[in-house]
Amino acid sequence: MKAWFENIESDEEGTQYPLQALVSELNFNDDGLIPVIAQDAVTKDVLMFAWMNEDALNETIANGRMCYWSRSRKTLWRKGESSGHAQQLVELRTDCDGDVLLALIDQTGAACHTNRRSCFYLKFNGQSVQIDSV
Amino acid sequence: MKAWFENIESDEEGTQYPLQALVSELNFNDDGLIPVIAQDAVTKDVLMFAWMNEDALNETIANGRMCYWSRSRKTLWRKGESSGHAQQLVELRTDCDGDVLLALIDQTGAACHTNRRSCFYLKFNGQSVQIDSV
Repeated sequence: MKAWFENIESDEEGTQYPLQALVSELNFNDDGLIPVIAQDAVTKDVLMFAWMNEDALNETIANGRMCYWSRSRKTLWRKGESSGHAQQLVELRTDCDGDVLLALIDQTGAACHTNRRSCFYLKFNGQSVQIDSV
Repeated sequence: MKAWFENIESDEEGTQYPLQALVSELNFNDDGLIPVIAQDAVTKDVLMFAWMNEDALNETIANGRMCYWSRSRKTLWRKGESSGHAQQLVELRTDCDGDVLLALIDQTGAACHTNRRSCFYLKFNGQSVQIDSV
Protein backbone atom coordinates (compact mmCIF):
# COMPACT_ATOMS: atom_id res chain seq x y z
CA MET A 1 0.00 0.00 0.00
CA LYS A 2 1.33 3.38 -0.99
CA ALA A 3 2.44 5.74 1.76
CA TRP A 4 0.30 8.57 0.37
CA PHE A 5 -2.90 6.69 1.15
CA GLU A 6 -1.66 5.50 4.55
CA ASN A 7 -0.69 9.06 5.45
CA ILE A 8 -4.18 10.48 4.87
CA GLU A 9 -6.33 7.64 6.15
CA SER A 10 -6.83 9.14 9.60
CA ASP A 11 -7.64 12.63 8.31
CA GLU A 12 -11.01 14.15 9.16
CA GLU A 13 -14.13 14.11 7.01
CA GLY A 14 -13.99 16.90 4.44
CA THR A 15 -10.19 17.12 4.27
CA GLN A 16 -9.21 18.03 0.73
CA TYR A 17 -6.21 17.14 -1.45
CA PRO A 18 -5.26 18.46 -4.88
CA LEU A 19 -6.70 16.30 -7.67
CA GLN A 20 -3.35 15.88 -9.41
CA ALA A 21 -1.66 14.75 -6.18
CA LEU A 22 -4.15 11.93 -5.92
CA VAL A 23 -4.12 11.01 -9.62
CA SER A 24 -0.33 10.72 -9.54
CA GLU A 25 -0.60 8.27 -6.62
CA LEU A 26 -3.34 6.05 -8.08
CA ASN A 27 -2.24 2.44 -8.51
CA PHE A 28 -2.25 2.01 -12.25
CA ASN A 29 -1.11 -1.56 -12.96
CA ASP A 30 1.88 -2.66 -15.07
CA ASP A 31 -0.21 -2.01 -18.19
CA GLY A 32 -0.97 1.53 -16.98
CA LEU A 33 -4.59 0.64 -16.22
CA ILE A 34 -6.90 0.95 -13.22
CA PRO A 35 -10.21 -0.93 -12.86
CA VAL A 36 -13.46 1.03 -12.84
CA ILE A 37 -16.79 0.00 -11.36
CA ALA A 38 -19.73 1.77 -13.02
CA GLN A 39 -22.78 1.98 -10.77
CA ASP A 40 -26.21 3.43 -11.60
CA ALA A 41 -26.42 6.63 -9.54
CA VAL A 42 -30.14 6.17 -8.88
CA THR A 43 -30.82 2.43 -8.53
CA LYS A 44 -27.25 1.74 -7.33
CA ASP A 45 -27.13 -1.41 -9.47
CA VAL A 46 -23.61 -2.18 -10.62
CA LEU A 47 -23.86 -1.93 -14.40
CA MET A 48 -20.40 -2.77 -15.72
CA PHE A 49 -16.71 -3.11 -14.99
CA ALA A 50 -13.98 -1.77 -17.25
CA TRP A 51 -10.54 -0.15 -17.22
CA MET A 52 -9.08 3.34 -17.62
CA ASN A 53 -5.59 4.56 -18.34
CA GLU A 54 -4.57 8.02 -17.12
CA ASP A 55 -5.68 9.67 -20.38
CA ALA A 56 -9.12 8.08 -20.12
CA LEU A 57 -9.43 9.23 -16.52
CA ASN A 58 -8.40 12.78 -17.35
CA GLU A 59 -10.85 12.91 -20.26
CA THR A 60 -13.66 11.51 -18.09
CA ILE A 61 -13.01 14.14 -15.42
CA ALA A 62 -12.77 16.95 -17.98
CA ASN A 63 -15.88 16.01 -20.00
CA GLY A 64 -18.11 14.37 -17.40
CA ARG A 65 -18.68 11.44 -19.75
CA MET A 66 -17.22 8.02 -19.16
CA CYS A 67 -14.20 7.23 -21.28
CA TYR A 68 -12.49 3.87 -20.78
CA TRP A 69 -9.48 2.10 -22.25
CA SER A 70 -10.47 -0.79 -24.49
CA ARG A 71 -8.03 -3.62 -23.77
CA SER A 72 -9.15 -5.54 -26.88
CA ARG A 73 -9.01 -2.60 -29.29
CA LYS A 74 -6.12 -0.87 -27.47
CA THR A 75 -7.68 2.55 -27.81
CA LEU A 76 -9.70 5.06 -25.81
CA TRP A 77 -13.30 3.88 -25.63
CA ARG A 78 -15.76 6.73 -25.37
CA LYS A 79 -18.73 4.76 -24.08
CA GLY A 80 -21.76 5.30 -26.29
CA GLU A 81 -19.84 6.76 -29.22
CA SER A 82 -21.01 3.97 -31.52
CA SER A 83 -23.94 2.50 -29.51
CA GLY A 84 -25.48 5.74 -28.28
CA HIS A 85 -25.43 4.22 -24.80
CA ALA A 86 -23.40 6.99 -23.19
CA GLN A 87 -22.70 7.36 -19.48
CA GLN A 88 -22.82 10.73 -17.76
CA LEU A 89 -20.57 10.90 -14.71
CA VAL A 90 -22.45 11.86 -11.54
CA GLU A 91 -19.83 11.10 -8.88
CA LEU A 92 -16.35 9.61 -8.89
CA ARG A 93 -14.60 7.93 -5.95
CA THR A 94 -11.53 5.85 -5.26
CA ASP A 95 -10.79 3.50 -2.40
CA CYS A 96 -8.45 3.43 0.59
CA ASP A 97 -5.45 2.27 -1.41
CA GLY A 98 -6.27 3.93 -4.73
CA ASP A 99 -6.33 0.77 -6.80
CA VAL A 100 -9.87 1.03 -8.18
CA LEU A 101 -12.33 3.75 -9.23
CA LEU A 102 -16.07 3.80 -8.49
CA ALA A 103 -18.15 5.89 -10.90
CA LEU A 104 -21.78 6.67 -10.17
CA ILE A 105 -23.33 7.31 -13.54
CA ASP A 106 -26.46 8.25 -15.43
CA GLN A 107 -26.72 5.46 -18.02
CA THR A 108 -28.48 6.02 -21.35
CA GLY A 109 -29.96 2.71 -22.51
CA ALA A 110 -28.05 -0.50 -21.90
CA ALA A 111 -24.61 -0.65 -20.31
CA CYS A 112 -24.01 -4.16 -21.66
CA HIS A 113 -23.07 -5.03 -25.25
CA THR A 114 -25.85 -7.68 -25.11
CA ASN A 115 -28.33 -4.81 -24.77
CA ARG A 116 -29.09 -5.72 -21.18
CA ARG A 117 -29.07 -2.84 -18.73
CA SER A 118 -26.35 -4.44 -16.57
CA CYS A 119 -23.51 -6.76 -17.56
CA PHE A 120 -24.02 -8.78 -14.37
CA TYR A 121 -26.77 -11.06 -15.64
CA LEU A 122 -25.16 -14.37 -14.65
CA LYS A 123 -26.25 -15.36 -11.16
CA PHE A 124 -24.76 -18.20 -9.14
CA ASN A 125 -27.45 -20.49 -7.75
CA GLY A 126 -26.25 -23.58 -5.88
CA GLN A 127 -24.60 -25.98 -8.32
CA SER A 128 -25.70 -23.96 -11.32
CA VAL A 129 -25.51 -20.48 -12.78
CA GLN A 130 -28.47 -18.89 -14.50
CA ILE A 131 -29.31 -15.94 -16.67
CA ASP A 132 -31.01 -13.48 -14.34
CA SER A 133 -30.96 -9.89 -15.54
CA VAL A 134 -30.96 -7.20 -12.88
CA MET B 1 -13.89 -12.54 -25.18
CA LYS B 2 -14.25 -16.24 -24.57
CA ALA B 3 -16.53 -18.24 -26.87
CA TRP B 4 -18.38 -19.76 -23.92
CA PHE B 5 -19.79 -16.38 -22.91
CA GLU B 6 -20.56 -15.36 -26.49
CA ASN B 7 -22.40 -18.63 -27.05
CA ILE B 8 -24.82 -18.12 -24.16
CA GLU B 9 -25.41 -14.38 -24.36
CA SER B 10 -28.64 -14.69 -26.36
CA ASP B 11 -30.11 -17.43 -24.17
CA GLU B 12 -33.40 -16.78 -22.41
CA GLU B 13 -33.90 -15.56 -18.85
CA GLY B 14 -33.65 -18.48 -16.44
CA THR B 15 -31.42 -20.66 -18.62
CA GLN B 16 -29.10 -22.65 -16.36
CA TYR B 17 -25.53 -23.88 -16.75
CA PRO B 18 -23.50 -26.17 -14.47
CA LEU B 19 -21.51 -24.20 -11.91
CA GLN B 20 -18.24 -25.92 -12.75
CA ALA B 21 -18.67 -25.23 -16.48
CA LEU B 22 -18.84 -21.51 -15.70
CA VAL B 23 -16.06 -21.52 -13.11
CA SER B 24 -13.71 -23.22 -15.57
CA GLU B 25 -14.43 -20.45 -18.11
CA LEU B 26 -14.00 -17.49 -15.76
CA ASN B 27 -11.22 -15.14 -16.84
CA PHE B 28 -8.68 -15.53 -14.09
CA ASN B 29 -5.71 -13.30 -14.99
CA ASP B 30 -2.09 -14.35 -15.47
CA ASP B 31 -1.70 -14.43 -11.68
CA GLY B 32 -4.72 -16.74 -11.40
CA LEU B 33 -6.88 -13.98 -9.92
CA ILE B 34 -10.26 -12.44 -10.68
CA PRO B 35 -11.45 -9.09 -9.28
CA VAL B 36 -14.40 -9.04 -6.89
CA ILE B 37 -16.75 -6.15 -6.16
CA ALA B 38 -18.37 -6.45 -2.71
CA GLN B 39 -21.68 -4.59 -2.48
CA ASP B 40 -23.93 -4.20 0.55
CA ALA B 41 -26.98 -6.34 -0.23
CA VAL B 42 -29.35 -3.89 1.50
CA THR B 43 -28.03 -0.36 0.91
CA LYS B 44 -26.32 -1.39 -2.36
CA ASP B 45 -23.30 0.73 -1.45
CA VAL B 46 -20.10 -0.66 -2.93
CA LEU B 47 -18.03 -1.53 0.14
CA MET B 48 -14.73 -2.87 -1.16
CA PHE B 49 -12.85 -4.35 -4.07
CA ALA B 50 -10.52 -7.33 -3.81
CA TRP B 51 -9.35 -10.46 -5.63
CA MET B 52 -10.04 -14.19 -5.52
CA ASN B 53 -8.18 -17.16 -6.91
CA GLU B 54 -10.12 -20.32 -7.75
CA ASP B 55 -9.60 -21.78 -4.27
CA ALA B 56 -10.96 -18.61 -2.64
CA LEU B 57 -13.98 -18.69 -4.95
CA ASN B 58 -14.71 -22.34 -4.24
CA GLU B 59 -14.40 -21.76 -0.50
CA THR B 60 -16.67 -18.72 -0.68
CA ILE B 61 -19.32 -20.69 -2.57
CA ALA B 62 -19.03 -23.67 -0.21
CA ASN B 63 -19.12 -21.70 3.05
CA GLY B 64 -21.20 -18.65 2.16
CA ARG B 65 -18.56 -16.39 3.69
CA MET B 66 -16.30 -14.18 1.64
CA CYS B 67 -12.80 -15.52 1.21
CA TYR B 68 -10.37 -13.51 -0.91
CA TRP B 69 -6.77 -13.87 -2.02
CA SER B 70 -4.46 -11.42 -0.28
CA ARG B 71 -2.01 -10.17 -2.91
CA SER B 72 0.24 -8.64 -0.25
CA ARG B 73 0.32 -11.65 2.07
CA LYS B 74 -0.01 -14.21 -0.74
CA THR B 75 -2.49 -16.32 1.17
CA LEU B 76 -6.21 -16.96 1.42
CA TRP B 77 -7.85 -14.08 3.27
CA ARG B 78 -10.93 -15.13 5.17
CA LYS B 79 -12.45 -11.69 5.65
CA GLY B 80 -13.16 -11.02 9.30
CA GLU B 81 -10.95 -13.82 10.63
CA SER B 82 -8.78 -11.35 12.53
CA SER B 83 -10.97 -8.21 12.54
CA GLY B 84 -14.33 -9.86 13.20
CA HIS B 85 -15.67 -7.92 10.23
CA ALA B 86 -16.92 -10.95 8.30
CA GLN B 87 -19.00 -10.87 5.16
CA GLN B 88 -21.87 -13.27 4.59
CA LEU B 89 -22.52 -13.95 0.93
CA VAL B 90 -26.09 -13.12 -0.11
CA GLU B 91 -25.82 -13.31 -3.90
CA LEU B 92 -22.98 -13.87 -6.36
CA ARG B 93 -22.92 -12.78 -10.00
CA THR B 94 -20.47 -12.51 -12.85
CA ASP B 95 -20.59 -10.37 -15.96
CA CYS B 96 -21.04 -10.93 -19.69
CA ASP B 97 -17.42 -11.91 -20.26
CA GLY B 98 -16.70 -13.53 -16.90
CA ASP B 99 -13.82 -11.29 -15.94
CA VAL B 100 -15.18 -9.95 -12.65
CA LEU B 101 -17.39 -11.13 -9.78
CA LEU B 102 -20.08 -9.11 -8.00
CA ALA B 103 -20.88 -10.26 -4.47
CA LEU B 104 -23.89 -8.89 -2.61
CA ILE B 105 -23.04 -9.30 1.03
CA ASP B 106 -24.19 -8.84 4.59
CA GLN B 107 -21.28 -6.91 6.16
CA THR B 108 -20.56 -7.15 9.87
CA GLY B 109 -18.99 -3.86 11.01
CA ALA B 110 -16.60 -2.06 8.72
CA ALA B 111 -15.47 -3.39 5.34
CA CYS B 112 -12.47 -1.05 5.29
CA HIS B 113 -9.25 -1.54 7.24
CA THR B 114 -9.59 2.13 8.33
CA ASN B 115 -12.74 1.09 10.20
CA ARG B 116 -14.94 2.97 7.75
CA ARG B 117 -17.94 1.05 6.50
CA SER B 118 -16.85 1.43 2.84
CA CYS B 119 -13.37 1.68 1.35
CA PHE B 120 -14.62 4.26 -1.17
CA TYR B 121 -14.26 7.34 1.04
CA LEU B 122 -12.20 9.46 -1.35
CA LYS B 123 -14.51 11.56 -3.52
CA PHE B 124 -13.42 13.55 -6.55
CA ASN B 125 -14.69 17.12 -6.40
CA GLY B 126 -13.54 19.45 -9.18
CA GLN B 127 -9.82 20.12 -8.83
CA SER B 128 -9.65 18.38 -5.48
CA VAL B 129 -10.42 15.10 -3.79
CA GLN B 130 -11.92 14.95 -0.32
CA ILE B 131 -12.60 12.49 2.44
CA ASP B 132 -16.31 11.79 2.23
CA SER B 133 -17.39 8.54 3.83
CA VAL B 134 -20.41 6.82 2.35
